[in-house]
Amino acid sequence: MKLCYQVATPDVAIADSVTAYQGPLEKSFYDLASFGYDGVELMTLNPSELNWDFVRKEAEKNKLSVVLVCTGEIFGQLGLSYTHPKEEVRKEAIRRTKEIIDFASALGANINIGRIRGQYCSQLSKEQTEQLAIDAFKDLSEYGGKKKVEIALETVTIMQTNFINTLQEAAKMIKAVDHPYFKLMMDVFHLNLEEKDICQAIREYSKYNIHVHLADNNRRYPGHCGLDFEKILSTFEECGYYGNFCTEIFQIPSQEEAAKGAIAHLRPILNKVYGDKNNS
Amino acid sequence: MKLCYQVATPDVAIADSVTAYQGPLEKSFYDLASFGYDGVELMTLNPSELNWDFVRKEAEKNKLSVVLVCTGEIFGQLGLSYTHPKEEVRKEAIRRTKEIIDFASALGANINIGRIRGQYCSQLSKEQTEQLAIDAFKDLSEYGGKKKVEIALETVTIMQTNFINTLQEAAKMIKAVDHPYFKLMMDVFHLNLEEKDICQAIREYSKYNIHVHLADNNRRYPGHCGLDFEKILSTFEECGYYGNFCTEIFQIPSQEEAAKGAIAHLRPILNKVYGDKNNS
Repeated sequence: MKLCYQVATPDVAIADSVTAYQGPLEKSFYDLASFGYDGVELMTLNPSELNWDFVRKEAEKNKLSVVLVCTGEIFGQLGLSYTHPKEEVRKEAIRRTKEIIDFASALGANINIGRIRGQYCSQLSKEQTEQLAIDAFKDLSEYGGKKKVEIALETVTIMQTNFINTLQEAAKMIKAVDHPYFKLMMDVFHLNLEEKDICQAIREYSKYNIHVHLADNNRRYPGHCGLDFEKILSTFEECGYYGNFCTEIFQIPSQEEAAKGAIAHLRPILNKVYGDKNNS
Repeated sequence: MKLCYQVATPDVAIADSVTAYQGPLEKSFYDLASFGYDGVELMTLNPSELNWDFVRKEAEKNKLSVVLVCTGEIFGQLGLSYTHPKEEVRKEAIRRTKEIIDFASALGANINIGRIRGQYCSQLSKEQTEQLAIDAFKDLSEYGGKKKVEIALETVTIMQTNFINTLQEAAKMIKAVDHPYFKLMMDVFHLNLEEKDICQAIREYSKYNIHVHLADNNRRYPGHCGLDFEKILSTFEECGYYGNFCTEIFQIPSQEEAAKGAIAHLRPILNKVYGDKNNS
């Protein structure tokens, strides 16, 4: 189990809405290691613009695991998705995801599927959208399997997409895709918005889960607002989850303060809940 | 205390994201009265396109109070706000709000200020944005006071705006405006996202509060998901709140089912919590 922080690679445009540590990778990795993090999750747009060997070596130098590469900004900054009504847009979304799978493979990481799945729209029927998503997920899982990269489907609040909002909906997709490399990840910010009971939902769908995002209910660092992280993290431990925990939060009041605030709140809880299994 | 449902007047464009009952007003009012609602909140864009006398008489015919008129779609559909960097946009936002105050006055209703307040932007300093908001709020409160229309400032999640997200921030604004017609409203969907503890926040800021929006944590009808409405409504009662409760929810699975689902869940709780004071 590793406590991780999201880091934007320098090809991602700096913006207030970006939920990751930003700036030169050397500095981001150095800062996060010095705050006490065990690993990072990368938010990447164009892996081809990056020196992969440099990224790997900088992470190693700072003793940080790279556990996941996010694909969200391919949608966020370019508007590409697997269920876009235009075929050329869908193809480009898949091509770029495969590039990110290659990058993740070189780092020993997995990838996630967030908003890049797209949404229901007026030009396509619900069934067409779902079939396009399943086809893309199968294609990417086959590709991921060859590269030893797992694909983690993320549920997202209806405030950001109308497609796959709950763990129940994600589990249905995972069963339809039916591939050993196509799994689930849980983001507690989204769970707080979309699930009847966060802990019950974790228990019910834990068997599919390979990654976790942590944020408080106001999407600031855990401990800033009202979510009960001891209860939530204990539920993950009870379910036998020993994967990674990564913050995905607004960098408020500053990225340094958000990163320090998150670890100050989470590390004592993780030590208490996971005990000896903490750094397995 | 009245249980109300949000209704879009026919000048508001029909859209999936609209959180109100839609269609001809005669049908909307008839349906909601027959489901058992006591009142409505109107979502209006161009009051000048409406026959005010017709609206009033249709409401009376169905024994529905019109308790509030929303201004949100002036921002949602036209992009106008009080803190826009362009002066002509700000002026038009205020002019349209005054038109809505006139309309609300004719119906004996109040108005709310949601997303039309605007947001912090790169062209203006935070102080400039706050001052523009305070100036607009004072102007509108003066105008509202003359027409006996109270202005209810609504806190909105950071997912929709970066300006006035918490009740603490709203209370600071209310103190700065310092006008007897400028007050607060609480939306439990936004409170669940932005407050440390919903019930504690209600207790702390109840003295400013004149209106309440209800939605479940997934913004569907109360009872659809996980919020504890008995606990929340009991807190309002404890605080001596006897104002109106109005749903503001996604019309899912259909507006009829959402409206029936909300009242089926809320009416028994309101009867239990408010007892004899239910229809005061």
